[in-house]
Amino acid sequence: MSDLAVSVDDVTAAQARIADAVVRTPLLPAAWAPGDLWIKAENLQPVGAFKLRGAVNAIALLDPGVRSHGVVTHSSGNHGRAVAWAARAAGVPAVIVMPEGAARVKVEATRALGAEVVIVPGDRREGVADRVRRVRGMGLVPPYDHADVISGQGTLAMETLVDLDDIDTVLVPVGGGGLISGVGVAVSSLSPRTRVVGVEPALAADARASLADGRRIAWDSRATSRTIADGTRTPVVGRITFPIMQATVDEIVTVTEDEILSAVASLARCARLVAEPSGALSVAAYLAGPWKYGRTVAVLSGGNIDPLLLARALASHTGKE
Amino acid sequence: MSDLAVSVDDVTAAQARIADAVVRTPLLPAAWAPGDLWIKAENLQPVGAFKLRGAVNAIALLDPGVRSHGVVTHSSGNHGRAVAWAARAAGVPAVIVMPEGAARVKVEATRALGAEVVIVPGDRREGVADRVRRVRGMGLVPPYDHADVISGQGTLAMETLVDLDDIDTVLVPVGGGGLISGVGVAVSSLSPRTRVVGVEPALAADARASLADGRRIAWDSRATSRTIADGTRTPVVGRITFPIMQATVDEIVTVTEDEILSAVASLARCARLVAEPSGALSVAAYLAGPWKYGRTVAVLSGGNIDPLLLARALASHTGKE
Repeated sequence: MSDLAVSVDDVTAAQARIADAVVRTPLLPAAWAPGDLWIKAENLQPVGAFKLRGAVNAIALLDPGVRSHGVVTHSSGNHGRAVAWAARAAGVPAVIVMPEGAARVKVEATRALGAEVVIVPGDRREGVADRVRRVRGMGLVPPYDHADVISGQGTLAMETLVDLDDIDTVLVPVGGGGLISGVGVAVSSLSPRTRVVGVEPALAADARASLADGRRIAWDSRATSRTIADGTRTPVVGRITFPIMQATVDEIVTVTEDEILSAVASLARCARLVAEPSGALSVAAYLAGPWKYGRTVAVLSGGNIDPLLLARALASHTGKE
Repeated sequence: MSDLAVSVDDVTAAQARIADAVVRTPLLPAAWAPGDLWIKAENLQPVGAFKLRGAVNAIALLDPGVRSHGVVTHSSGNHGRAVAWAARAAGVPAVIVMPEGAARVKVEATRALGAEVVIVPGDRREGVADRVRRVRGMGLVPPYDHADVISGQGTLAMETLVDLDDIDTVLVPVGGGGLISGVGVAVSSLSPRTRVVGVEPALAADARASLADGRRIAWDSRATSRTIADGTRTPVVGRITFPIMQATVDEIVTVTEDEILSAVASLARCARLVAEPSGALSVAAYLAGPWKYGRTVAVLSGGNIDPLLLARALASHTGKE
């Protein structure tokens, strides 16, 4: 795997680099679930998602001359918030390019972190972000397809491997593949017997199709927009993440929309953790077949859910504890 | 304070004793709140509340001959569940005496932990628990008024003092006073400049009245039953906890029912943590006047909330993040 864009040494170096700016999240035993499940609670990061790790690492690794001009990215979701947060922590300006129609609460939350929000038509996001980068001399921090972002995300696997022995399976939500690539690099190197299993909604299973076919396959946004797991609607995995996934991911499984919402409800009821649908994918996959995975770590990747959707999940999946 | 029933050495000893059976919960920065707030997330304990600490410690300290016969307590709430859990972990039987009318979900959850549940008329709970103790030779683990329970609860303060420097205030929910007594002993000894502030619902402010009057004042259950913070409906603080509170607690403040429910919603939305009303008291007090407390640790003491109440809190307190 020496030809991959990210090495385990990159992840190790990232860990020291970001330690002061991120929360070392707990690995929580989930005794309420059958089998042997542990939850890596990345929803407890300040911005509510693992994305902070990659953003902090990428900003720290920018050329100082570039960094002093600030950073720019395009994202209406957790990545945008993470970049805004990390830029503020680093004391540099941030520009977040968001599509028209982005939820006002997300725009306001990002502005509250001191970032400048630029609203453009959805299909012009990347172009505008790149122009901001050129004109203002800023550093671009892409949401997933960047070596420094990937190595930052991998740091959560390093913490996990310190906290728990003999892990059979790590379950990881998959969108663009940044998180699972970082985890894959760390786990395949430091605990090769541990299986790295990605989880996608059945409605947005482009990564599964890509790995099965050996090439990056894009899913139409008309298809992927149907899933409530909005963090996984990325149409296709990255050019950099895909070969890392091919080398380090054992399998990708899918879950239904009802399984996702049920996992959101179970996490709130039994683990007292608020998960967003994309963040609960890993737990949804586990609960659909706990006997498959042995001792399992499920990465709960984020918790930024619409409060009314959480209320609906709780009301419709009352379950029993 | 050398004449108190619990010393800081008791708490220190408890910490080593219970380390393998409880979660070392995270102390999470709450950057979403004004000022300087940190949350000690005891809702992430396996039973969803700090109660596990005292139960594990008290069971470990029973005479081995007694312990082998098992343990008994009376509680339909978090303490009963904690004793059931701790007994199972210690490999001994548990009898939990619950009042008629206890929620079926609570009865089932306790039975699922392997405990024997005995249902009796509400006014006979203590008597029946004591008779079980005598007849079956079991150890009684009271919910709060016991030195070993108090020293167990205090361990969360030890963790907090290791995790954060220069704490101005620790905010602690108050029911029978077991938690705040343990915290008070640890904090007054190890960080005397830190203020220990208790929080009660205005509808169940018997501890505040007791401290103000210098004697234990009981509030009628017809009054206290009106608060949604069911963990604080204890009519009066304990005989053992009261003098500890007198010696170590700086102040007790109260919050309204709306402030409690609003804090539950804020914790879910902004901290991605599920809190029960009693557990959110500390955060409710902080949010009502953050400028009063300086650098503050709020103990989020538990997360066992009725899912439909959580759904209601989320729907009625949408707030902004």
